[in-house]
Amino acid sequence: MSLEYAQRFDGITGSAIRDIFKLLKRPDIISFAGGNPANSALESDVISEFVVRVLKQNGTAILQYGQTEGYTPFRESAAKFFEHNGVFATAEQVLPVTGSQQALDLICKVLLNPGDAMLVESPTFLGAIQTFKLFQAKLYAVDTDEDGAIPELLEEKIKKYHPKLIYLIPTFQNPTGRTLSLERRKAIAKLMEKYDDVVLIEDDPYRDLRYNGEPLPAIKSFDTTDRVVYCNSFSKIISPGMRVAAVVCTEPTLMRKLVIGKQFADVHTPNLNQAVMDAYLREGTLMEHIRIISESYGRQMAKMQEMLSTFPKSVSYTKPDGGIFLWCELPEAFNATDLFQNALERNVAYIPGTNFYCEPDTHHNTMRLNFSNATLENIEIGMGKLRDLFIEAGLK
Amino acid sequence: MSLEYAQRFDGITGSAIRDIFKLLKRPDIISFAGGNPANSALESDVISEFVVRVLKQNGTAILQYGQTEGYTPFRESAAKFFEHNGVFATAEQVLPVTGSQQALDLICKVLLNPGDAMLVESPTFLGAIQTFKLFQAKLYAVDTDEDGAIPELLEEKIKKYHPKLIYLIPTFQNPTGRTLSLERRKAIAKLMEKYDDVVLIEDDPYRDLRYNGEPLPAIKSFDTTDRVVYCNSFSKIISPGMRVAAVVCTEPTLMRKLVIGKQFADVHTPNLNQAVMDAYLREGTLMEHIRIISESYGRQMAKMQEMLSTFPKSVSYTKPDGGIFLWCELPEAFNATDLFQNALERNVAYIPGTNFYCEPDTHHNTMRLNFSNATLENIEIGMGKLRDLFIEAGLK
Repeated sequence: MSLEYAQRFDGITGSAIRDIFKLLKRPDIISFAGGNPANSALESDVISEFVVRVLKQNGTAILQYGQTEGYTPFRESAAKFFEHNGVFATAEQVLPVTGSQQALDLICKVLLNPGDAMLVESPTFLGAIQTFKLFQAKLYAVDTDEDGAIPELLEEKIKKYHPKLIYLIPTFQNPTGRTLSLERRKAIAKLMEKYDDVVLIEDDPYRDLRYNGEPLPAIKSFDTTDRVVYCNSFSKIISPGMRVAAVVCTEPTLMRKLVIGKQFADVHTPNLNQAVMDAYLREGTLMEHIRIISESYGRQMAKMQEMLSTFPKSVSYTKPDGGIFLWCELPEAFNATDLFQNALERNVAYIPGTNFYCEPDTHHNTMRLNFSNATLENIEIGMGKLRDLFIEAGLK
Repeated sequence: MSLEYAQRFDGITGSAIRDIFKLLKRPDIISFAGGNPANSALESDVISEFVVRVLKQNGTAILQYGQTEGYTPFRESAAKFFEHNGVFATAEQVLPVTGSQQALDLICKVLLNPGDAMLVESPTFLGAIQTFKLFQAKLYAVDTDEDGAIPELLEEKIKKYHPKLIYLIPTFQNPTGRTLSLERRKAIAKLMEKYDDVVLIEDDPYRDLRYNGEPLPAIKSFDTTDRVVYCNSFSKIISPGMRVAAVVCTEPTLMRKLVIGKQFADVHTPNLNQAVMDAYLREGTLMEHIRIISESYGRQMAKMQEMLSTFPKSVSYTKPDGGIFLWCELPEAFNATDLFQNALERNVAYIPGTNFYCEPDTHHNTMRLNFSNATLENIEIGMGKLRDLFIEAGLK
């Protein structure tokens, strides 16, 4: 007899992207597929030093069970750090989590019943789509343009579908790299006042990687009714392998339930990992580290855009001010999902854009390119190969 | 307007024990309430050394995103380590998780629909009860005696309730300290062959903390139909704050779904934390460390039992061969939940046993005592105070 699995897994395969990443282990591949920091951006010496120090100063407390609510010094330093985004919270309003993906899992666990409606940007982060599907949410896509999600369309869909949750990545969005304009941030915060049975997840892991222009305040900074849950991660600016992110939730009952959800999901985020992030924040060197990696990433983005400017004119692409991704659209007659196999044969990889849409098997003319984890030389070589492939495929 | 939360949170408070732990922060309290290792058992120097080494040798890979399936060297060394429990698995059958609590969350996520039946020991680990309730399982308790869960009763309830899952802690059980006998391990493995639409979770975090007698093979060692999912944790033998446990699952489809569930829960368990556990296992010093801490814990258990032997004769208590807990029963007329307040006033704490039962507000005459995180002196003082309290309360 075979086992009967939970209904929430019906239609969940998790395979497309995972299979891509397995292919990418080949050392000869130039990959624009991941969402990784550059290896050179990972400060193993600094982290080693911080670990030695925190274990020496506070080894017993670090190695024992910690509070589900998080390691107090880190909650304090994270609260202070978020002020530069316009997010003013007390330490008690900060919940450290085991990567931002856990924030999504917990928020869904606390709020969603099967069949509940959710609004997401079109396109959006594929890991988020999968988590929402595991909670059996009905996903409705809200169209975006160069300035991000369109508030009028968002309101229309709020009225029509009565969603429990809205999920936005307003700054240097994954996958497009686009940023929600200041006016729209304010307009969306207003919508959250008007429709106060809806929670907005503001996922903001890329905001500190800005190469041009001035930072914009988080939507959370305009939140007057505690309906915005702000998620920030240290994966892109310190290390993804350490798995530390933090949620700011100013609605006390929601926070309490997130903590209970976390208690029965993983008890707490590893103390040592929280203490390392805390050391980065207290040391005061993080902003300088961000400045240094942003210089490199900015050059990598410029090189990728320079290469894209030599592509056939029918290929359009985004021109972000930061982040780690560019987004390309081919004419509708061309299929980036099929072309991916040809690209792999030439040892270049990207992610077919179809994976970033709620509606399966659509938008095959799109693709996501990551530039943070490729050298300038590999960007030149790899993008050159892609351009040649696209020209041979008949793009003009 | 207030937010509408998910139905799975109906009746979930998470409060009783959490509130107890908050009280326990008072430095003057002698606590037998937690489930912590002794502070002296936490080797911050060794862990510090391991971290420095793994970051030096492999910093980039450790700090980048890892595979959801886990850090390969750790999967290998964990698979090898589990052989001494009679569990023979390949590295691919080992899934590192962010503490055993995550194993419970993922197994439920993969298998349970709301309303599905589950069998648990009576009493059982309160964190497990809460996780199962969050997945809206219908919990049915199976009676236990000195030799653990009673297979005949288990089979009766399998037939009656058609459970999806059975949850057992066969070795030095939480909260009772009891161990399932060899005959019953074999009998329960046979039941799993007979009823092969049921999965058994074998939660085994205490087995290496044995102070008397010979180790028993895991139920998993008798599993011929891949229906036993074996969970082992490094929390009790290395460090709970590091949050590393590992699941052995030999059923490939179930394993694949656990990995997908984990991918969208926290992507992967922090690599550094897995690498530290791997270093412990490869270094070959873990068994010696376990021998040393077991000597202390054995003395602490003996002291607690010695003190219990001076209690009024109507107080019965378990006499385990290992683990970190003892379980006491008072005569039915006495209420350990009420007496807890009096104990706190005298600066002693335990956990009222009612929290370990699926049926709320029952078994108020029971209590759990932890001895691993108390010095011999504090055990003498604290247990003396409890004895005096119980005598004053009228126990004979």
